[in-house]
Amino acid sequence: MASPLRAGGDDGVVEEWVSAVLRDARVARLGTADTGGAVRLVPICFALVDAWLVSAVDHKPKRTGQLRRLDDMRAAGQATVLVDHYDDDWSRLWWVRVRGRAEVLDPTGDANATATAGAAVEALTAKYEQYRLHPPDGAVWRLALDEVRWWRASDLRA
Amino acid sequence: MASPLRAGGDDGVVEEWVSAVLRDARVARLGTADTGGAVRLVPICFALVDAWLVSAVDHKPKRTGQLRRLDDMRAAGQATVLVDHYDDDWSRLWWVRVRGRAEVLDPTGDANATATAGAAVEALTAKYEQYRLHPPDGAVWRLALDEVRWWRASDLRA
Repeated sequence: MASPLRAGGDDGVVEEWVSAVLRDARVARLGTADTGGAVRLVPICFALVDAWLVSAVDHKPKRTGQLRRLDDMRAAGQATVLVDHYDDDWSRLWWVRVRGRAEVLDPTGDANATATAGAAVEALTAKYEQYRLHPPDGAVWRLALDEVRWWRASDLRA
Repeated sequence: MASPLRAGGDDGVVEEWVSAVLRDARVARLGTADTGGAVRLVPICFALVDAWLVSAVDHKPKRTGQLRRLDDMRAAGQATVLVDHYDDDWSRLWWVRVRGRAEVLDPTGDANATATAGAAVEALTAKYEQYRLHPPDGAVWRLALDEVRWWRASDLRA
């Protein structure tokens, strides 16, 4: 199938179940911080392109100001994404967390940025059927898999 | 039933469905930032006590270092919590976000802190059957409902 997913730094190859989560999970949560240290959290749809997690502003209705997450990423250059599973059977809990460099690929960017954004939209559209009718047409951003951490209750003892 | 939930500041009374989410949701995600602006995200169990969201370090197995979220809260004095619902029918998406003052109630704290922590553990144990066998015995923390924001796809048009 796909080649093993590699995280940056010393993490090396991530475990198979972690790769599957990062490939297949339908929703994740993005955390960004503004310059005052206030954290903004929002659910996101995402896909993987090489060693990047990609996402885009899409047609889902937005509240005014919700897109300040983009300003946060532009200013801080970093972000965090969490994918997790809750089950009332706590032996089935798990989470996967990605931290790394974050980039907003502005539509006014250079040819490289345009190509990268195009590949991101393609990956998102391949993953989410909902995007086939309405491909995301807003700003595209990506998060490097610089640090991938994971936890699974079944791997550890209480 | 319960009196309407009030958020601080100008938010006033939150909508009924938002109160229900904050009362009944089984899982939320906590976001804290360290002094360098790096965001830490972790899933949490939580309950409400008055206008505070409360949580505690429990017996669920932890990875070394996972509790740096407490250090973040102590240093920053603020945190963010998100509760959301994902559905492949995007007209059913919603989220509720709380931001505000965060406090870690250290077990070595004064009598007020001890009483507050006790009420928090009581609320958690009342909500989560899993805590009845193993009440949380680690640090208790709480987040003021200073700012409650919510979004529901069905309330808005694309």
